[in-house]
Amino acid sequence: MRTTSPNGPSRRVMLGALAALPTLPGLFGAAPARAQAVPLPSWNDGPAKQAILDFVRATTDAASPSFVPPEERIATFDQDGTLWVEQPMYTQLIYCLERVPAVVKARPELANVEPFKTVMSGNQQAIAMLSTHDLEEILAATLTGMSVDEFNAEVKKWLETAEHPRWKRPYTDLTYQPMQEVLVYLLANGYKNYIVTGGGQDFVRVYSQIVYGIPPEQVVGTAGGTKYGYDKDGKPFLTKEPKLLLNDNDAGKPEGIHMMIGRRPHAAFGNSTGDQQMLEYTKAGDGARLSMLVLHDDAKREYAYGPAQGLPDPKVGTFTQALYDEAKKQGWTVISMKDDWKRIFAFA
Amino acid sequence: MRTTSPNGPSRRVMLGALAALPTLPGLFGAAPARAQAVPLPSWNDGPAKQAILDFVRATTDAASPSFVPPEERIATFDQDGTLWVEQPMYTQLIYCLERVPAVVKARPELANVEPFKTVMSGNQQAIAMLSTHDLEEILAATLTGMSVDEFNAEVKKWLETAEHPRWKRPYTDLTYQPMQEVLVYLLANGYKNYIVTGGGQDFVRVYSQIVYGIPPEQVVGTAGGTKYGYDKDGKPFLTKEPKLLLNDNDAGKPEGIHMMIGRRPHAAFGNSTGDQQMLEYTKAGDGARLSMLVLHDDAKREYAYGPAQGLPDPKVGTFTQALYDEAKKQGWTVISMKDDWKRIFAFA
Repeated sequence: MRTTSPNGPSRRVMLGALAALPTLPGLFGAAPARAQAVPLPSWNDGPAKQAILDFVRATTDAASPSFVPPEERIATFDQDGTLWVEQPMYTQLIYCLERVPAVVKARPELANVEPFKTVMSGNQQAIAMLSTHDLEEILAATLTGMSVDEFNAEVKKWLETAEHPRWKRPYTDLTYQPMQEVLVYLLANGYKNYIVTGGGQDFVRVYSQIVYGIPPEQVVGTAGGTKYGYDKDGKPFLTKEPKLLLNDNDAGKPEGIHMMIGRRPHAAFGNSTGDQQMLEYTKAGDGARLSMLVLHDDAKREYAYGPAQGLPDPKVGTFTQALYDEAKKQGWTVISMKDDWKRIFAFA
Repeated sequence: MRTTSPNGPSRRVMLGALAALPTLPGLFGAAPARAQAVPLPSWNDGPAKQAILDFVRATTDAASPSFVPPEERIATFDQDGTLWVEQPMYTQLIYCLERVPAVVKARPELANVEPFKTVMSGNQQAIAMLSTHDLEEILAATLTGMSVDEFNAEVKKWLETAEHPRWKRPYTDLTYQPMQEVLVYLLANGYKNYIVTGGGQDFVRVYSQIVYGIPPEQVVGTAGGTKYGYDKDGKPFLTKEPKLLLNDNDAGKPEGIHMMIGRRPHAAFGNSTGDQQMLEYTKAGDGARLSMLVLHDDAKREYAYGPAQGLPDPKVGTFTQALYDEAKKQGWTVISMKDDWKRIFAFA
């Protein structure tokens, strides 16, 4: 399925994987394990693990000058590349591309209209060359125009059958076990964990509870408007509209945090330039603050891109050398997947 | 201070109350009492109290066909007129009018520009005649253009000194004790309470925790954008912008609930046409749902307006006869302040 293109792996498409796979009925049944006798068991001892332990001690010990009252303990996590795999492209974009056949079936007039025609052709090289504007059209056509309930049902169904091309597992299996442990450790210490993603807020909310133990109301993401209306029986419902309310990337992250949470986080985790302002904003608060960047430098167990000089950066969010230098300058802690993590996934 | 005008009491202004009053240092220290041996002690027995008790039993008894898992227990409350007094006008508007002198001091060129000139004149009759457009200009000038931290500090300071003209108490004392008991009762039964207000989200968030035990992240309101930037030392901060992101009234309430919470409430409480869609949307969900409307029919202990035929409706939100009829038709429960509430305020 993999095709080399000037745009790099972020544009590779895996159409058709859906139909070939059995459903995984267990996916929406179980919650992630929560017990953790020793904190952060999948982390190697080192500065990254120590920074997390020190931060939690400083903010939860009542005798500490940096003590934070429980109600103010907010931690924010980027998702793609920070909590789970974002290669070969971010999961929501794969969902949107794989939804195109259903959209064209419902609206046959799109079959001969670009960019839908290209997606329907199955020509991976051509799909990989689609422009940002083309992708935006595909996102709008596949993420809007249906009711909120219909959208939620579609995403849930897709997640039960879709799988990642490399690991041949559901995308929801591809969360980083060490980051799951950070979520558990912070939760156990009174922190309220939020996902603050450049991806779609409604998309991530479908699975945030079962995948991360984070309820939908603690997911902040790129969000479109909805329109309130009534069906033929007079029953009210919300329709997803192609109107952008929040672009939750870059400066949009602290702005979205203010809008949706109303407090400055004490800890923030990211992996790309799209997270820079969230990490700055977090670190600029009083007292002990933790800003961390996940560096993808493990081509063997996951991927290497950004300053690790492996794969090109994925389209959404990039980890540049400038960001790496900024982290060093600002006192953010860089997490090396290769050196700091004993294992990457729960299944491996 | 009261002036009769064609626009009714909602436009009456209480400029100057600020300076004359002592500060109330206790305001931001204590949390509301939480213990409640018998549920809803300030409610008279009757259909309204019974509807709340029945709803909680139906949704929290694991043997009930309408059982709701704890993580899905969401209750939403309008604020002005539902949780606290909205006469002679809603509190945030009083704040904005009383902030005008400070704005004019900082920007002297506004002193001779309408509508600021009228507000500065202190002519209560003229102030009561200001148009909606004038008021919007006043809201923009007093709620935007400063940093989020500056705004929060200003509101907090104002609340410590401002007082209601009738009861001569801080506005934060004027919450309805029976509704405080509903908040406590639902919280004790696993519900997450949200304020969903047509008022300003940032304004209400300043005091929601201490007044209602509701943290800022559980306040949804009319919200403007913020802009991320840096001060002269390179420290990032957010500036409140005059750009409307969410008009949290009417259809904006269910739309805002979707944006900020992502779940349909199981219970909703309102008092005006601005709450109608929230009550409809809540009631339209599966299983047991509770939609309630507070009717202001107690001129002696509070106010009588709307179908109770007393004062005219306040400008923001109205309780019309049509809304009352809709409540009866849709199976929403109307709460009569006169008949259902033993007392209105904790202090009385």
